[in-house]
Amino acid sequence: MSGPSGGWLAIAGLGPGDEALITPEVTAALAQASDVIGYIPYVARVAPREGLVLHPSDNRVELNRAAHALDLAAQGRRVVVVSSGDPGVFAMASAVFEALEAGATAWRNLDIRVLPGITAMLAASARAGAPLGHDFCAINLSDNLKPWPLIEKRLRLAAEADFAMAFYNPRSKARPEGFARVLEVLRDACGEDRAILFARAVSTPEEDLRVTTLGKAQAEMADMRTMVIVGSSRTRIIDRATRPILYTPRSAS
Amino acid sequence: MSGPSGGWLAIAGLGPGDEALITPEVTAALAQASDVIGYIPYVARVAPREGLVLHPSDNRVELNRAAHALDLAAQGRRVVVVSSGDPGVFAMASAVFEALEAGATAWRNLDIRVLPGITAMLAASARAGAPLGHDFCAINLSDNLKPWPLIEKRLRLAAEADFAMAFYNPRSKARPEGFARVLEVLRDACGEDRAILFARAVSTPEEDLRVTTLGKAQAEMADMRTMVIVGSSRTRIIDRATRPILYTPRSAS
Repeated sequence: MSGPSGGWLAIAGLGPGDEALITPEVTAALAQASDVIGYIPYVARVAPREGLVLHPSDNRVELNRAAHALDLAAQGRRVVVVSSGDPGVFAMASAVFEALEAGATAWRNLDIRVLPGITAMLAASARAGAPLGHDFCAINLSDNLKPWPLIEKRLRLAAEADFAMAFYNPRSKARPEGFARVLEVLRDACGEDRAILFARAVSTPEEDLRVTTLGKAQAEMADMRTMVIVGSSRTRIIDRATRPILYTPRSAS
Repeated sequence: MSGPSGGWLAIAGLGPGDEALITPEVTAALAQASDVIGYIPYVARVAPREGLVLHPSDNRVELNRAAHALDLAAQGRRVVVVSSGDPGVFAMASAVFEALEAGATAWRNLDIRVLPGITAMLAASARAGAPLGHDFCAINLSDNLKPWPLIEKRLRLAAEADFAMAFYNPRSKARPEGFARVLEVLRDACGEDRAILFARAVSTPEEDLRVTTLGKAQAEMADMRTMVIVGSSRTRIIDRATRPILYTPRSAS
């Protein structure tokens, strides 16, 4: 796995929380690493050991963190950047490649690998049944990096396409009104009876799932640890004694 | 994990091919199973052992296979239905829930779990860089279960929404002309310069990746083992001495 300098960079997904959802590939990379870099709560999931330097950093410094990782790898260190879920889905992989493209030419020849993980929408979908079993889309509702009208446009087009929809980062303290507006747009475009899943902290001790309809959904049902999935027009709820099953059939008609 | 009868059903994702991409959760379920059910090449990935009955079956018998699995679990067997990738993405989970909903009432109280896996689009995306690093959609191009006009409608709406797009089952011997038409629609909607990835058999010895543009893409570049990803208008290609990196920045503007 080593490049010319002996250094390498792996951008690795730790999955949604449960250790049993971390791939052996990621576990092996962490075992070989000299440095682990990432957002504080993700680095906290990596066990300290002799010879391993942990570099936890705050949220919203993704580009600095990415440049730091590239710089360490260029110095010959064995670096793992950790994300929760999958690093390629609204996580650190894009930030690293943005820093790479803007940075030193020498960085382009580094040995860089992205190690996939179980992303939040697939963990949530599995827990609820199979709401993403037919065509679907994934939208980041954070408007830090995206103008609000674009989010609304995408919601309306996704509804017209009859995609199931998975929403990352639905709600934060900084913009509590955004997700209420998302629910309004969806009720208008999909109707009150459309199924919606709120899946919080899946695979952790705080896991909490709720299946309801857009008509009954309230913005307060989501926080930043919640994955929200809205079904397509074909999505069904199977009631049973325990939690209902939410799934989308394979056939479109 | 056992239900009242002692039987249970796990619908498990084996990932794209490499053993190092199978989660420990799935490995543990297979170690406890009495029966493994699935499409022939996926069951062939499970090591035989004393006390484990393997039930390989042919393609396109998903509902029969699902009913068989539910029936065995109801008899008290410990059953794992295996899919490649993630069972909830164009795979067996929806088929099992279709059979469950149409079948015996007693099945509804079975202990059923879906165990997520690394789905093909995320394995392909990781290998290429991070083309799904911003909003994206996943579309099954097989028209076995979907009328062609709906596929074309979804392509056009996804292009208008400026999603990156991941395509499963792009091409088969039975309908070689369909994917050529997909490329025509995409060239019309996204232009000739849009980036496209053909990622074949990712994480297996036959892995082959090709990054090009819609203008240069040809239908023959894909077969049924190929994952196709088309970038959004923001997706970028970083050239380097080795394979180029394909990624979509986190920001929409």
